[in-house]
Amino acid sequence: MTTSIAPSTLLADYQAVRAWSVRLCASLETDDYVVQPTADVSPPKWHLGHTTWFWETFVLMPNAPGYQVFHDDFSFVFNSYYETVGRRVLRTQRGNMTRPTVAEVYRYRDYVDEHMSRFLDEHEPDAALHALITLGLNHEQQHQELLITDIKYILGHNPLFPAIAMPIREHAPAIIAPSVTVGEGVHDIGFREAELGRFHFDNELGVHKVYLNKTTVAGQLITNTDYLEFIQAGGYGQFSHWLADGWAWVNANSAKAPLYWHKIDNQWYNYSFDGLVSVDPDAPVCHVNHYEADAYARWRSLSEPGVRLPTEFEWETAALQDSSFLWGHRWEWTASAYLPYPGFTTARGAVGEYNGKFMSGQMVLRGASVATPAGHERPTYRNFFQPDKQWQFSGIRLVRP
Amino acid sequence: MTTSIAPSTLLADYQAVRAWSVRLCASLETDDYVVQPTADVSPPKWHLGHTTWFWETFVLMPNAPGYQVFHDDFSFVFNSYYETVGRRVLRTQRGNMTRPTVAEVYRYRDYVDEHMSRFLDEHEPDAALHALITLGLNHEQQHQELLITDIKYILGHNPLFPAIAMPIREHAPAIIAPSVTVGEGVHDIGFREAELGRFHFDNELGVHKVYLNKTTVAGQLITNTDYLEFIQAGGYGQFSHWLADGWAWVNANSAKAPLYWHKIDNQWYNYSFDGLVSVDPDAPVCHVNHYEADAYARWRSLSEPGVRLPTEFEWETAALQDSSFLWGHRWEWTASAYLPYPGFTTARGAVGEYNGKFMSGQMVLRGASVATPAGHERPTYRNFFQPDKQWQFSGIRLVRP
Amino acid sequence: MTTSIAPSTLLADYQAVRAWSVRLCASLETDDYVVQPTADVSPPKWHLGHTTWFWETFVLMPNAPGYQVFHDDFSFVFNSYYETVGRRVLRTQRGNMTRPTVAEVYRYRDYVDEHMSRFLDEHEPDAALHALITLGLNHEQQHQELLITDIKYILGHNPLFPAIAMPIREHAPAIIAPSVTVGEGVHDIGFREAELGRFHFDNELGVHKVYLNKTTVAGQLITNTDYLEFIQAGGYGQFSHWLADGWAWVNANSAKAPLYWHKIDNQWYNYSFDGLVSVDPDAPVCHVNHYEADAYARWRSLSEPGVRLPTEFEWETAALQDSSFLWGHRWEWTASAYLPYPGFTTARGAVGEYNGKFMSGQMVLRGASVATPAGHERPTYRNFFQPDKQWQFSGIRLVRP
Amino acid sequence: MTTSIAPSTLLADYQAVRAWSVRLCASLETDDYVVQPTADVSPPKWHLGHTTWFWETFVLMPNAPGYQVFHDDFSFVFNSYYETVGRRVLRTQRGNMTRPTVAEVYRYRDYVDEHMSRFLDEHEPDAALHALITLGLNHEQQHQELLITDIKYILGHNPLFPAIAMPIREHAPAIIAPSVTVGEGVHDIGFREAELGRFHFDNELGVHKVYLNKTTVAGQLITNTDYLEFIQAGGYGQFSHWLADGWAWVNANSAKAPLYWHKIDNQWYNYSFDGLVSVDPDAPVCHVNHYEADAYARWRSLSEPGVRLPTEFEWETAALQDSSFLWGHRWEWTASAYLPYPGFTTARGAVGEYNGKFMSGQMVLRGASVATPAGHERPTYRNFFQPDKQWQFSGIRLVRP
Repeated sequence: MTTSIAPSTLLADYQAVRAWSVRLCASLETDDYVVQPTADVSPPKWHLGHTTWFWETFVLMPNAPGYQVFHDDFSFVFNSYYETVGRRVLRTQRGNMTRPTVAEVYRYRDYVDEHMSRFLDEHEPDAALHALITLGLNHEQQHQELLITDIKYILGHNPLFPAIAMPIREHAPAIIAPSVTVGEGVHDIGFREAELGRFHFDNELGVHKVYLNKTTVAGQLITNTDYLEFIQAGGYGQFSHWLADGWAWVNANSAKAPLYWHKIDNQWYNYSFDGLVSVDPDAPVCHVNHYEADAYARWRSLSEPGVRLPTEFEWETAALQDSSFLWGHRWEWTASAYLPYPGFTTARGAVGEYNGKFMSGQMVLRGASVATPAGHERPTYRNFFQPDKQWQFSGIRLVRP
Repeated sequence: MTTSIAPSTLLADYQAVRAWSVRLCASLETDDYVVQPTADVSPPKWHLGHTTWFWETFVLMPNAPGYQVFHDDFSFVFNSYYETVGRRVLRTQRGNMTRPTVAEVYRYRDYVDEHMSRFLDEHEPDAALHALITLGLNHEQQHQELLITDIKYILGHNPLFPAIAMPIREHAPAIIAPSVTVGEGVHDIGFREAELGRFHFDNELGVHKVYLNKTTVAGQLITNTDYLEFIQAGGYGQFSHWLADGWAWVNANSAKAPLYWHKIDNQWYNYSFDGLVSVDPDAPVCHVNHYEADAYARWRSLSEPGVRLPTEFEWETAALQDSSFLWGHRWEWTASAYLPYPGFTTARGAVGEYNGKFMSGQMVLRGASVATPAGHERPTYRNFFQPDKQWQFSGIRLVRP
Repeated sequence: MTTSIAPSTLLADYQAVRAWSVRLCASLETDDYVVQPTADVSPPKWHLGHTTWFWETFVLMPNAPGYQVFHDDFSFVFNSYYETVGRRVLRTQRGNMTRPTVAEVYRYRDYVDEHMSRFLDEHEPDAALHALITLGLNHEQQHQELLITDIKYILGHNPLFPAIAMPIREHAPAIIAPSVTVGEGVHDIGFREAELGRFHFDNELGVHKVYLNKTTVAGQLITNTDYLEFIQAGGYGQFSHWLADGWAWVNANSAKAPLYWHKIDNQWYNYSFDGLVSVDPDAPVCHVNHYEADAYARWRSLSEPGVRLPTEFEWETAALQDSSFLWGHRWEWTASAYLPYPGFTTARGAVGEYNGKFMSGQMVLRGASVATPAGHERPTYRNFFQPDKQWQFSGIRLVRP
Repeated sequence: MTTSIAPSTLLADYQAVRAWSVRLCASLETDDYVVQPTADVSPPKWHLGHTTWFWETFVLMPNAPGYQVFHDDFSFVFNSYYETVGRRVLRTQRGNMTRPTVAEVYRYRDYVDEHMSRFLDEHEPDAALHALITLGLNHEQQHQELLITDIKYILGHNPLFPAIAMPIREHAPAIIAPSVTVGEGVHDIGFREAELGRFHFDNELGVHKVYLNKTTVAGQLITNTDYLEFIQAGGYGQFSHWLADGWAWVNANSAKAPLYWHKIDNQWYNYSFDGLVSVDPDAPVCHVNHYEADAYARWRSLSEPGVRLPTEFEWETAALQDSSFLWGHRWEWTASAYLPYPGFTTARGAVGEYNGKFMSGQMVLRGASVATPAGHERPTYRNFFQPDKQWQFSGIRLVRP
């Protein structure tokens, strides 16, 4: 992985990224940092510790002469990787770890930040180390988005529905943008350094050709008003709209609406960082999973034949082809399974565990969301989650022939 | 769905297909027909009843004047479809249904066969009905393959490891065939009536263009000897060979070998319809799931860089391009997720539930197996199962750049 | 364990008991013998094989010179004991064992019966062997009752609700008998050979004194009419009538009535060996579990203070004290947990696993039921099941101060 | 429930009990208050809130004129009762409730304490209210013991094994006390106000007669050295020592030692509030469940026939008969199931849910432990837990004939 960030800015980038993680937690109470209400959601404390452990383990320990680890056991406590680096704590036990305390985790961050800053100030990283540090920054940015979604889950499942100040514009406005038509023929897909000139993950590498049919990609996302029509038409009660696994999910969870929606006295509310508020009719629908996105599209195709979710290739082509194509408010579920690009290979070692091992059973999301850190998004980015996950800021865009 | 079978042969085809279902069960004891040892495996009795119910419900009832159903409750008992046709019996309860008895199910078959034969003898089906009957024949052939795999599972999990006579050549010989190289460029994918001129399922319809890189598809399948090297190299104990979900499967199931393999006194045996026999070193490995196929390929790529599973498009292109390409002994796991072809739409009604609703979380297998009824296979056929399933006659073919 | 059965009658007893097991299955189809719809219910085939295995293993093998076992693997297949005699088949896997077939199991029975008859004809068992044979007869009688309850469960969960001829009087009439008052003071509890002079299990041994308060034991069991009042009063929906575990059971199972009851067009039906029939208003309620019995009693105590279930000691005292006390139609749930009598010890070896290891988490039932083989009942008999079990012929008797 | 505490001391008692709850948490970090690592263990924050809610709901709201609740939603958040008082939070969700924060809970305590103190200062409670307040004090003391056991569980399952200062003498010394022989005959059981003159729960009410055989109750508890012999003799690997449910528990949990024990480099350590320390050979064994206590006794009976656990009646008789009988270091598992005493009835309303509904599936423990608040213990106290629970300070005492 290469990068064009000049060495002189690496320290500034490091400090900015690290400060943002802390900024996201500024309104939390200590209590909020500790719990894991479901397996997907990690305690905020763990995110803060894990991202710090990354710098200590992969940058400071191998490269900073005489560096002393902050605490011998933290490698065990904050490691999320399988086995390449020691024995990890099982993910579902993270929610029981009251020690190290939040205060200790912040001391850990300060200690590592001090050593990292000194190291970056005094050393000029070679290309490999530069790439690794850039990977670390992007890794921390990924956890910043998870910090936001996980904090929302924790507070959104609290019976008091607490409001907190979060430095993100959660309430995305409706977007009015023209649709984009992708032409039939062979298109290039994948990260191109010449054009995009920045960081990328291994999973988007390997420019390759894909044949597409002519497709018109909608300029705007499905809104809450649109989605309410599906709900009111009985969409959650009609099996023929759903994938078999999706219908099983609906029934096992008695699903009736997107995550965080509550019907109170016949009005729909949803939890946001402002507390429990009325559903905004114009905002793009949020916190739907792939099953819901697929069912919505299938239901729409009854009245508008040919309507469906885009493939990730159609999406990327539209985004690269037309600068008027607006995205970035919701992660957009695609019709593409998360699979390797031609020629994909996995790097050896812990860093190599990054992406490849998840290429089974997940769907690709494209774009970015209101929770994505500025600068982390790009049109070739491949995000991925299992089709039942709702807790990301995920929405729906449709295409038509 | 269209077909070129002449009306005069439809009756003969019907009788041949129906007879083969019965033939497959000829060596069973009544006891063997009744149980459901795991959710995926249906009782043989249920397969015999369900395929019969298909004819009664979709052909005789709407088309045969004055037809009387054999038993009012059988629609409830033998329906596998969601809700389009009545309320179905939950799949996992099939294993408790001692009534109707095996004897009654055979009477049900005789009754329906008699009416179907008379109907086909006396009526000339129009094109739509002809297509539906052809679909029914292929539907029954699919259940014939499941009959074989389910009987094998039932007997292969019996502590007595009983041997029975089955009219299939389970022990496929090693195949020595040349590899096939697929050229770089745009290729046509999908069922083409002009060339293949026969039945097809909805999921393979829609000829469309796919861009492929140059790839060499191996001429022979991975053998038991090949696979034993992976086992002996500790393949089931090294997480880095496995997809994350695959590694979870290995650990949850203490997996150490393909299904039906048993290590006794340091020798490997596997259950077959001949009973418990030594693993044949030259036969293509069988009863591996997608995780195992993927892990095997990843392990091989350590010594042969670039080796991997084929996509379903590479496979289809090789099969259509070169008549020396031999297949049909094992369903071959591909690297492709089971997703709709461009323009895929679902037919309305119960028949429309056939394929589309399963397009989530499953992987495509191509080819056919020793358990596939003669004439049911074709190079555009898309079989699909969840990546953890081992009980089909599934194997591994590799490709290289 | 001692017995007064004369040697001359042992063979006749053996043959009568063995014939009754077969008689109970006379109306079954082969299919009915094979399945295990829930962990508590064993396949009838297994009961027939297991009781036969008992005779082979504990009587013939150690005592009959030159006896050859029928099949080497049957010890493995039909053993229900932990580990004293080989490795047992896990209980929940019994329902997958299509082999040995029903026909083979009957051949196994014939083979063992022939050898047992010859053995009993030619040998005069010493006291120890005599006691063991008597234990075997009682063991088989216990399985005869389970055969009936398990067959009822299998057919009663079949969507066709089949009727079969069973040689029991399932529809017990209402009993009109006087109540019995137990006096305050010390009473003797436990099996007394002098009075009862017959077989007993180890768990009822050890005559000991128990202090009882004055209690009046009802002469008749709670009827379906009585129990319907509880249902109609909303008894299944009011948590305050239920034990905490009982309330959890109600909710987890959406319980609304005894097992086998179905409300159709606002009328209550229940499954019996005659098929689905109207609930008999006068018959004693059947197929209730301990939670239901306890909740019924608690609900009744709102209008009749002090009403409750009897302890097993009150029951036994009433039964021994007054010959007009009628019992034997329903196993009657008591308020007593199944615990050892003073001085209880467990015999060594497989036979010792019989009762003691179950003395945790179960409740005592006293009496007998319409499914109990004639001669197997006695007033000191301690039956026991977990408090959530409904599938025995279990009912309710109340006491008052 | 009656009490002889003079009105003048009620306020002092209230303040002392309330202060002790806070004192027990003095060494906790905020993080430690929040989590629920297993369903049995409640977050310390919840205990502090729930006990406060008791005073607000049952004393202040009905009795203190003009009392304003601290927060409208706290009734919902801190209610552990079924349905008598509103809808309760499901117990297993307590571990996700980061709000109200620990700080808010302490403010809640202060607010309620201020109002309670003023109320008790200004009002002379009548007998009924006096009894209710006394019940509240005992209720809070019960939660004080749970606070200790739950904090131990939380920290004892943390990979850092943190040490904290706790105001209890966790390391009970070995007790050398003479055994006590209970004579054969009728004994009185149950709380007697004349003798014990203090608070009692409803479950120990109802003096009644029980007939006991002559039994010698050991003067000292089983020590760690004693229990290690059982471990070293392979006790956890031999099914014949265990109840059937106990053996299932051993296997499902791979149990090999009491809770908190860890074998490191062939030495046994156990977690305590001092951190991970060597097992003290002389201390009474702790954190064993009923299955372990029963298995230990059964194993001992092989060498000392007749040895077993005491019934709760033998224990109570010994404790009341002989002042040299020492107890209070461990809750002692008895051989008695938790069942109602003769004449037991449940009070109406929420307070009535206290004890009766748990009289199913649990075993009685007698005595008290190092975690029991001073003054809360008495010889007629009936503690109870399911037989698989290990996390209380529970130990073993044996009896012999």
